[in-house]
Amino acid sequence: MNFHKITDRDLSYFEQLLPGNCFAQAEVLEAYAHDETEDLHFMPEVVLKPSTTEEVSAILKYCHEHGICVTPAGGRTGLSGGMLPVFGGVIMSMEKFNRILDIDERNHQVTTEPGVITQVLQNTLKERGLMYPPDPSSKGSCFIGGNVSENSGGPKAVKYGVTKDYVLNLEVVLPTGEIIWTGANVLKNATGYNLTQLMVGSEGTLGVITKIVLRLIQHPTQDLLMLVPFFDAQKACEAVAQIFQAGVTPSGLEFMERDAILWTLPYEPDTVIEVKDNHQAHLLIEVDGFDQEILMKECEKIMEVLAGFDTDEILFAESQAQKEQLWKLRRKVGEAVKSHSIYKEEDTVVPRYELPKLLALVKAVGKKYGFTSVCYGHAGDGNLHVNIIKGDLTDEFWNEGLSVAIAEIFEGVVKLGGTISGEHGIGLVQRQYMPIAFPGVQLDLMRAIKRAFDPKGILNPGKIF
Amino acid sequence: MNFHKITDRDLSYFEQLLPGNCFAQAEVLEAYAHDETEDLHFMPEVVLKPSTTEEVSAILKYCHEHGICVTPAGGRTGLSGGMLPVFGGVIMSMEKFNRILDIDERNHQVTTEPGVITQVLQNTLKERGLMYPPDPSSKGSCFIGGNVSENSGGPKAVKYGVTKDYVLNLEVVLPTGEIIWTGANVLKNATGYNLTQLMVGSEGTLGVITKIVLRLIQHPTQDLLMLVPFFDAQKACEAVAQIFQAGVTPSGLEFMERDAILWTLPYEPDTVIEVKDNHQAHLLIEVDGFDQEILMKECEKIMEVLAGFDTDEILFAESQAQKEQLWKLRRKVGEAVKSHSIYKEEDTVVPRYELPKLLALVKAVGKKYGFTSVCYGHAGDGNLHVNIIKGDLTDEFWNEGLSVAIAEIFEGVVKLGGTISGEHGIGLVQRQYMPIAFPGVQLDLMRAIKRAFDPKGILNPGKIF
Repeated sequence: MNFHKITDRDLSYFEQLLPGNCFAQAEVLEAYAHDETEDLHFMPEVVLKPSTTEEVSAILKYCHEHGICVTPAGGRTGLSGGMLPVFGGVIMSMEKFNRILDIDERNHQVTTEPGVITQVLQNTLKERGLMYPPDPSSKGSCFIGGNVSENSGGPKAVKYGVTKDYVLNLEVVLPTGEIIWTGANVLKNATGYNLTQLMVGSEGTLGVITKIVLRLIQHPTQDLLMLVPFFDAQKACEAVAQIFQAGVTPSGLEFMERDAILWTLPYEPDTVIEVKDNHQAHLLIEVDGFDQEILMKECEKIMEVLAGFDTDEILFAESQAQKEQLWKLRRKVGEAVKSHSIYKEEDTVVPRYELPKLLALVKAVGKKYGFTSVCYGHAGDGNLHVNIIKGDLTDEFWNEGLSVAIAEIFEGVVKLGGTISGEHGIGLVQRQYMPIAFPGVQLDLMRAIKRAFDPKGILNPGKIF
Repeated sequence: MNFHKITDRDLSYFEQLLPGNCFAQAEVLEAYAHDETEDLHFMPEVVLKPSTTEEVSAILKYCHEHGICVTPAGGRTGLSGGMLPVFGGVIMSMEKFNRILDIDERNHQVTTEPGVITQVLQNTLKERGLMYPPDPSSKGSCFIGGNVSENSGGPKAVKYGVTKDYVLNLEVVLPTGEIIWTGANVLKNATGYNLTQLMVGSEGTLGVITKIVLRLIQHPTQDLLMLVPFFDAQKACEAVAQIFQAGVTPSGLEFMERDAILWTLPYEPDTVIEVKDNHQAHLLIEVDGFDQEILMKECEKIMEVLAGFDTDEILFAESQAQKEQLWKLRRKVGEAVKSHSIYKEEDTVVPRYELPKLLALVKAVGKKYGFTSVCYGHAGDGNLHVNIIKGDLTDEFWNEGLSVAIAEIFEGVVKLGGTISGEHGIGLVQRQYMPIAFPGVQLDLMRAIKRAFDPKGILNPGKIF
């Protein structure tokens, strides 16, 4: 793709438009040249930090007119390279859109700007007894706008759904600079095509989100947490589906392979967990609600299911501190695995019951191509994060041969009724695999939708397709 | 719009393609000339009843090539005229797509054809302990495919969400005849634009749905139902939001104005309800779950809220029979109001707490323009069905003046953060009001999406825009 390179004249336009919020210094550009995706690095030509919808609109109008490409950036915690400015141009950082605009307790809704950190939003709402459930592992630093753009999930999704299930309405600046609202602040809507749901998960390629209306729920007041060691990782996967069949919907149902915990423990030395030699995997199971007795009953049902499996002693978290420790451990796994080795992370998802087959598939492909993998993730959703470890693999295989192996995993995933990304998005690093998930016609439709929103293709080019 | 009129040559192609399932006889055409929308009537030129995806594809390929318009038809229970063949052409009836293909208990999913009656699907699933919650009043005759096309709701939506919250994946034949799957059979999906959600609620204008994958939940085993008479209809609306703020999410929270019940009682003479002179409205409140004790606790919380309002004696349904009677009464309201007079039904929706303002608005506009209205609906969702009664109004005002009044209601609805259809769709009869919900840019985007799917505009023309 051919975009206009930014000139001094462009820079002076941006400086005039955003006094003090236009950056072309190398150290600033450098900070916006990467997210959390592997070791990828692309330099933007300028970083702009607008703080109003009108400023976003003016920037996009100008860039549309001049053929300058624009990549919106949130908390830069993405795992698929969605914010990498692969063609240079403008990084539009949304960090100054950091206000929660209206907490509407009576309607269980919040209107927020996109640059609010997800955990800040959640904690603010919790003070009012309200809950916004989706909680990606990066919640301490990711932006709610990024969550909307990637349709983020997290551990609570198993009971409460993903980001798309909470977005009611969006203010969006189109790549041409026009400002729209995509829907209405209502729970039911049968008024034209669902532009709101089209924006959710569109990875910043269709428009820049400037306001978000989310529905909220009452915050649960109670929870119980248990950690279950399995001697057989396959059996742990099988137990997952059976828990749902028993009529319980846990608020968290996480799977961690042996190595996932072992590699993470050094980063969380206070965690009191014994991983025995014969422990192949752990399930972390949480139930939540408003009544302790009900939760106890649900735990009993879960225990009945687990009694049918060969597990070691189950750890019930005894205090709030221990609960937090266990969740911290789980949240840290991704980071720990990454610190351990060069890696590539795949975000596979299948129907829940097919999880054991997915795990077997990953291990079989690993054996065939000679790589190790560490698997963990949201088992209750059938969403398994597969971390392929570089270890002793040659650079040549890592850079060229591995994609054949990954394609083999994805083809198996699709055969199981699944797809290639559950919650991380396609971004830059998964787009080569899109034809496995969607043959030509669907991709053509998506491209046509992209053109309808962004006729010149200036917004976040090089992503998804 | 200019479409090719069907000739004998076209007919003989269709007859050859669908032996015995191609109808041009007047009495068949007549049966497909209307749905449940007012007294509207448009004759198709031919009715086709394919029974395989390949047949649907062949029909669309042919019609696309020859410029023949095609209107898909489901159970023909729509309330916005979505299946009316306003330009004649082909009615593609999906009634032969009536098989439930796969009930996947282990993954809590079902794959069904679109021509299955919603209640048949629900009952079949219930036998396995599974639930597909969305239950429009027409559930005894509407098709699940129509529900997907209109993003149907129903009373259970308040707790369980609407159709869009259950659709995982769709097999769709595009207007050009190409066959696609829109997504994957998974609970989390961040793989490209959400074509599944774009199809849901698109009212048969983007493609013909031939297979539907729905997620399911465990069927609740217990429920409690109460009917609460209010002396003040506004106060009934206010109570609705307070129930949610108390931390209870009822599985049904229905509002019926005085007249809605009075007009319906003659159709359900067995119902033992006394509507006193000073009863202005009733709330029908249901809670459901798996544990009687928990439900009793929830009812107590609801009673605490209601104690703050001036209500008459609350009726608790004492038997399954009485529960069914009360729900039957509620479901019958629409039909009863329609039998009572010529009417126009609007499907307004606002944020839940704004419901009293919406009711006041409807009555004020009625007073200004001199019409009576009967209001009822899904108060828990802020979704109020407004039935405007013709009564003594002149034909001239009814046919021309009334739209000004309706526009005034819709403008007020949008100011309250709401929109013009919660669950009935835009179809034919609401499209003139679309510019109130969406100014030009959004409509242009929707039109561009339509063109991307249907370049010649042959599929269900004259709807939404």
